[in-house]
Amino acid sequence: MSKVMIIGAGGVGGVVAHKCAQLPEVFSDIILASRTESKCKKIAAQLSRPIRTAQVDADNVPELTALLQAEQPELVINVALPYQDLSIMDACLAAGVNYLDTANYEPRDTAKFEYSWQWAYQDRFADAGLTAILGSGFDPGATNIFTAYLARHYFDEITELDIIDVNGGDHGYPFATNFNPEINIREVSAECRHWENGEFVTTPPMSTQARFECPEGVGSYDIYRMYHEELESLSTHFPGLKRAQFWMSFSENYLTHLEVLNNVGMTSIEPVEYEGHKVVPIQFLASLLPDPSTLGPRTKGKTCIGCMVRGIKDGKERLMYIYNISDHQACYREVQSQAISYTTGVPAVIGAKMILEGYWREPGVWNVEQRDPDPFMADMNELGLPWTVVELDPGFRLDIVKGQDS
Amino acid sequence: MSKVMIIGAGGVGGVVAHKCAQLPEVFSDIILASRTESKCKKIAAQLSRPIRTAQVDADNVPELTALLQAEQPELVINVALPYQDLSIMDACLAAGVNYLDTANYEPRDTAKFEYSWQWAYQDRFADAGLTAILGSGFDPGATNIFTAYLARHYFDEITELDIIDVNGGDHGYPFATNFNPEINIREVSAECRHWENGEFVTTPPMSTQARFECPEGVGSYDIYRMYHEELESLSTHFPGLKRAQFWMSFSENYLTHLEVLNNVGMTSIEPVEYEGHKVVPIQFLASLLPDPSTLGPRTKGKTCIGCMVRGIKDGKERLMYIYNISDHQACYREVQSQAISYTTGVPAVIGAKMILEGYWREPGVWNVEQRDPDPFMADMNELGLPWTVVELDPGFRLDIVKGQDS
Repeated sequence: MSKVMIIGAGGVGGVVAHKCAQLPEVFSDIILASRTESKCKKIAAQLSRPIRTAQVDADNVPELTALLQAEQPELVINVALPYQDLSIMDACLAAGVNYLDTANYEPRDTAKFEYSWQWAYQDRFADAGLTAILGSGFDPGATNIFTAYLARHYFDEITELDIIDVNGGDHGYPFATNFNPEINIREVSAECRHWENGEFVTTPPMSTQARFECPEGVGSYDIYRMYHEELESLSTHFPGLKRAQFWMSFSENYLTHLEVLNNVGMTSIEPVEYEGHKVVPIQFLASLLPDPSTLGPRTKGKTCIGCMVRGIKDGKERLMYIYNISDHQACYREVQSQAISYTTGVPAVIGAKMILEGYWREPGVWNVEQRDPDPFMADMNELGLPWTVVELDPGFRLDIVKGQDS
Repeated sequence: MSKVMIIGAGGVGGVVAHKCAQLPEVFSDIILASRTESKCKKIAAQLSRPIRTAQVDADNVPELTALLQAEQPELVINVALPYQDLSIMDACLAAGVNYLDTANYEPRDTAKFEYSWQWAYQDRFADAGLTAILGSGFDPGATNIFTAYLARHYFDEITELDIIDVNGGDHGYPFATNFNPEINIREVSAECRHWENGEFVTTPPMSTQARFECPEGVGSYDIYRMYHEELESLSTHFPGLKRAQFWMSFSENYLTHLEVLNNVGMTSIEPVEYEGHKVVPIQFLASLLPDPSTLGPRTKGKTCIGCMVRGIKDGKERLMYIYNISDHQACYREVQSQAISYTTGVPAVIGAKMILEGYWREPGVWNVEQRDPDPFMADMNELGLPWTVVELDPGFRLDIVKGQDS
């Protein structure tokens, strides 16, 4: 019987609130807080049992600290913006509250994905006797746990990791982005980094492409190698990894749209002078595109996200593949969000459950792969993210169609 | 020895000013007027002899009338925006000045290409003893004259017309439009209409495509059937035409850009509310694209624009093809504009010369094919737009690769 405060009332916040509300034996008292309390109240009205809501500016440490001191939750589930991770961690330390998030801190003004800022809180959380769990979404999150689970049960040592994130969903629009188009476009246009023989190797954006056949008839997709934040923590915590890569699916149609919009200057974040007003092209574009929050009811198809892990067991090479398949429409029926928000929000709830039930309670700052994967994996099967593990022929390699797989 | 006022200081205005300045025996006194006089002065500074410049708002009939009354030119050459045709015609009537333009009037708020508004001025110009010549650019313009010239010299009756406009130029940008992008995009996204057995037949935009091999090694291009304004006047003035079609070349890259911009709503002419202001998406897009006037120095390659005319001569079927080839870089060297502006501006100057020299002076409102084509055709050869006429096997048909040629 614990009190939890969820901060953030976007798509993921909605999923977390729905799932916590479904588990009254774990989350007996729920507060949903956001800068815009009306968004919290709208989510609260969808739930099977009453929760409380609050207004808070997560950038304002004294304001958030005061709210936490007044409420004294056992845990904060941070599903606000990545810019706000540090101020929320500061408030948790000040108020003596455990912490969990789904994405690493980013400074507002630079696209810089790294854990250094948050790892620097290790001693302060340890000294305060508080637990902070970083990156408990799907990727990062479930993918890190998948890796740790396979490493523990199927290998003596793991040497290669490919994280493969396929979204086979179709919202029926010629072009729309699943979340903020500015962040979407920034990810795709960032240089690729992957882990190779003890260091990160940089290659041009979208320069390495493979064709991947998903299991269980989900279909065949073009996947592109790109940087994703879990590569940093996994290469640190599994020092035997000789190579670690992240792949995401994009349709040709999606990439063509992005390229054209980029060519004509519509993706620029620099304001231009237009008829006496300052207009930021990408923001004007976003105003023309379908609102991401309206995609849920119309998105059909499945996601398939998993890890392919190569390593050694009893002196022999072995290749395992572990994955979850989620159905956009099934997710929408359950929590009124499509699978992108669902697969991020449910692992946050399971991570929170791990802290509250004591499995992951250890003072300090931890990435999820540093904690016991087994109870988390068991809960994934129970709470809507069932997984499957299969053994592949070690001769199998990703079907590279552009660039080099090394 | 005549005084002429050129209205409009865009790419075509620059070509017209250059060419008029080269012909002091025809255009003894030249005034270049525009809303932005600095653009006029910039063009004037490029010329071989002095011309005068003026500031005028061509939408403001009293203001323009006053300028015309003060200057008393013999002719206005209107190369401003098509939206301004009627206000300029009104001012010409009020001030007693002859008139010539290169593109038919369009209302600002609807993509509606038709001559009805301007043809309605017939009686007023006739009563005032003034001549108004409509559409004396290349297409419309030279293409109408080509048709009239072939009809007069090679046929007893013409029955089929294909106007083929190929631009083989490359400006090196991923995407840019050769003239006002708004007008460009409006044209391409409009439904196709072509003349067939006494009526206009409507087909979806860009649904009929052919492959065309240009003469003289200009190359092979994809051409698309679309509506173009000269089809209206030519089908009216050549009632024997059973079919009249207009084709324009577009690269796959250009069409992909247009399709994407259309998909995301950026080609819309409907204003949207954005941060408290009304923004017309296509106009905002145009403000981001390279200024068409900057394409000149970077554009390489050739244009090939002509008419394929089928008809009867002495009881036998006959097929003639007449064309001009222009080289973007040669045009730029001569008048500091590429061939798109050049091929539009030079026929405007020749049409003006026809009026001033009396060949085309007849009170009323006329499309160019209603006037004597022979002196115009002779001047094309003299003034930078040489043409070639060839006889084709009447069995020849355009190589249709998509849609139906009927």
